Amino acid sequence: MISRRALTTSCLPPTIRQLLSSRTASDPVQVNGWVKSVRRQKKVAFAMISDGSSDKGLQAVFTKVDLAKPLTNGCSVRLTGKLADSPGKGQDKELQVDQVELLGECDPAEYPIQKQALSVEHLRDHCHLRARTDEITAMIRLRDLASRSLCRYFEDQGFCYVHTPITTSSDCEGAGEAFRIAPPPSPDLPSSENPAEFFGRPAYLTVSSQLHLEALANAISRVYTLSPCFRAERSQTNRHLAEFWMLEAEWAFTRDIDDVCTVLEGSLRHVLKQAGASGEPVWTAGERARLPQLQAYADSDTAWPRLTYAAAVAELEAFHAASPRTFDFAPAWGRPLQSEHERWLAEHLARGPLFVTDYPAHLKAFYMRQNDAPGRDPRTVACVDLLVPGLGELAGGSLREEREDRLRGAMVRFGLGEEEYGWYLDLRRYGGAPHGGFGLGFERLISWMSGVENVRECIPIPRWAGRMLL
Amino acid sequence: MISRRALTTSCLPPTIRQLLSSRTASDPVQVNGWVKSVRRQKKVAFAMISDGSSDKGLQAVFTKVDLAKPLTNGCSVRLTGKLADSPGKGQDKELQVDQVELLGECDPAEYPIQKQALSVEHLRDHCHLRARTDEITAMIRLRDLASRSLCRYFEDQGFCYVHTPITTSSDCEGAGEAFRIAPPPSPDLPSSENPAEFFGRPAYLTVSSQLHLEALANAISRVYTLSPCFRAERSQTNRHLAEFWMLEAEWAFTRDIDDVCTVLEGSLRHVLKQAGASGEPVWTAGERARLPQLQAYADSDTAWPRLTYAAAVAELEAFHAASPRTFDFAPAWGRPLQSEHERWLAEHLARGPLFVTDYPAHLKAFYMRQNDAPGRDPRTVACVDLLVPGLGELAGGSLREEREDRLRGAMVRFGLGEEEYGWYLDLRRYGGAPHGGFGLGFERLISWMSGVENVRECIPIPRWAGRMLL
Repeated sequence: MISRRALTTSCLPPTIRQLLSSRTASDPVQVNGWVKSVRRQKKVAFAMISDGSSDKGLQAVFTKVDLAKPLTNGCSVRLTGKLADSPGKGQDKELQVDQVELLGECDPAEYPIQKQALSVEHLRDHCHLRARTDEITAMIRLRDLASRSLCRYFEDQGFCYVHTPITTSSDCEGAGEAFRIAPPPSPDLPSSENPAEFFGRPAYLTVSSQLHLEALANAISRVYTLSPCFRAERSQTNRHLAEFWMLEAEWAFTRDIDDVCTVLEGSLRHVLKQAGASGEPVWTAGERARLPQLQAYADSDTAWPRLTYAAAVAELEAFHAASPRTFDFAPAWGRPLQSEHERWLAEHLARGPLFVTDYPAHLKAFYMRQNDAPGRDPRTVACVDLLVPGLGELAGGSLREEREDRLRGAMVRFGLGEEEYGWYLDLRRYGGAPHGGFGLGFERLISWMSGVENVRECIPIPRWAGRMLL
Repeated sequence: MISRRALTTSCLPPTIRQLLSSRTASDPVQVNGWVKSVRRQKKVAFAMISDGSSDKGLQAVFTKVDLAKPLTNGCSVRLTGKLADSPGKGQDKELQVDQVELLGECDPAEYPIQKQALSVEHLRDHCHLRARTDEITAMIRLRDLASRSLCRYFEDQGFCYVHTPITTSSDCEGAGEAFRIAPPPSPDLPSSENPAEFFGRPAYLTVSSQLHLEALANAISRVYTLSPCFRAERSQTNRHLAEFWMLEAEWAFTRDIDDVCTVLEGSLRHVLKQAGASGEPVWTAGERARLPQLQAYADSDTAWPRLTYAAAVAELEAFHAASPRTFDFAPAWGRPLQSEHERWLAEHLARGPLFVTDYPAHLKAFYMRQNDAPGRDPRTVACVDLLVPGLGELAGGSLREEREDRLRGAMVRFGLGEEEYGWYLDLRRYGGAPHGGFGLGFERLISWMSGVENVRECIPIPRWAGRMLL
């Protein structure tokens, strides 16, 4: 009745990357990809073929020029031929084509991805096609590399990768920027009545996985996630998206904000080193000059500097007094650090990544742990922002208030009810352990590593206020 | 101004898993965790300590019984002592405790996670604490292992891990079960007016990443993602969640549904083998007896059987004619396969995983490729469902219609407009390559592997109609 067949381990032909890195190349090979450019001469034609697996692409050589006739920019093809050492410049190997199969035509007059440089705005308008450009391909491959490196780091440190919910009953940061899920239309109800909530209560899209991670960290000690987060943020900046990805790690049995800095620094050094060592062509889109600088941060044999907020403000004030025209905003204790302050601290004071710790409590979220040990400023909380040159804030973390009475006090001050956050208090009531963690904006990391300034070009299909094309 | 300090590579003390697997154990060690049970005798006390890193936990021995006095079930502790070979049964090593620090108290009378077996319903009501149970911890660790194995498999096959958007302008499957995002409240508008959409158009939560993956696969050839998906599904079954995770892979330059089966089978064999080889204690929650059976599927030296829908229906009809009382629904060509049919096919006909291919077009989504080559039944599409014993449908895939004219025809038949799906047609218009892929329900995979029947216990913090506790 059921016939058995032999087991096939793989059915996928090699990618261009795999072909170029393999040593045996005498057999006839099949190459699939898209035509990036065609150059026709009298006795020979050339085409650059890319399949997105490598930034190099592969040069195809047609000694039978007729074979190249149907090729246009953008079309997809299957070429059969021999891989050979290339006599030309710019590539080690080329494909000597014997056979061409046109898989998908592309009218070069209409094709939105032309060979010449295209504006960022044009590519955003065609974001379903923009991954066909070298720049966006490189960015997508960098995301792959960065997420893999981050995962390996946390795996090695005994962390467990977990999935936290996207739909949530609360607005974690209390900033009122959470998207709300509409109750489903209910044909059973008269239209005058409010339709029932699907979950029986209002539901939002998560702005951070942290609170849920805390529940899991208080059971399995070390957890992390790379998860989408959402903010109904209307400001149109280089650094904000309505939908973005965040690497968040949370762990129990830590009582010092220095530990949070150390784990965060360790994970970033690991990613930077992996990117440097990979030889991956991930830098096409950005300044290649940036790579040695990033490697220096990764290889530095002293820890990235750490400064309290109070000390940072003192530095800013001293500089502001000496050069009063540099900052638009005067720095002062108790005021938020502006972007211009953050960048000055990283770029001019530290000349590299800088941890700023122990901010005033009123500038930070309700769950951060009060600094009330002797010798600490009790107006501050045990938190940290990581500032980097060229970008400003890349990540933020804190110890979480694990003492039920103090957390309850903070919730009252922030106007948060027990009905919504009772479960969060429970985590403290039943064997709550001292714990902390951080969140790292994944698109900001990609922006920092690649030198691509706008985070809209650091995610394959971006979302921002007014923009959702597909 | 900025002081430099020596680089610290790690600040995290070893987990119990790390301690138990390390060979040198003579030094005093520090163990952090939660007390699972305490047993007091006259001259000695014992406590089982868990930190979620291992299903075994660690037995702590107190020869100074007073040290164990403050310990209660559920409290968090830091113990210092010596790791030694255990004379007792059930463990190789134990901790001989010299010092106890109580980190977080837990009133054993109020603690919702009691030592005795707790009902599934009770744990769902306390899902912020249920990861403290061995069963839920094991499930979370199995998710970690399965996602890691899947990622490594696709990485090795040249796939790129990508992030697709969660907020989307369309309902991919056209089933009308998509959650809608509410327009944000707008203080500028009179309340009689409809508030403006944040994205300028209606926005939904994605039901599948597939369409977006197709855009990326048509540029970088091989992509996959593990991403949350959402369905406003009201039926309360063992197999459905309102928010679930799906592994989706999509690749270009494939023209045979057999290729989709081969990649899907390869990825699952890899996960099953990794789970078997890991020695990970991931089976606590399920039937350990299941593991050898799963290993047999993974190690089988013939491919998992493949059957067309037509052949499957013929088998079902023959069986139904012979045993008319077995099925509630009579099988017939053109009707959907019911759960009872799917399970019979996997459990009785194939006695293992079974691919059913080439369903009638009217039973499947608009984007599936029509079987119109000579010798094929043109009423069918090139698709596949993977059925497994004990569960039914675990994954589904297809070739995607890459021919613009036929896709356009299908869109008209399904009532889908070009305004919404114009970009999807563009993928065909501009060098579209033949491509295909599949989606694998991650919670169903966990259910299948662990033997935990309800997917609500296969995700850390579940969501279903009427239920969202935190």
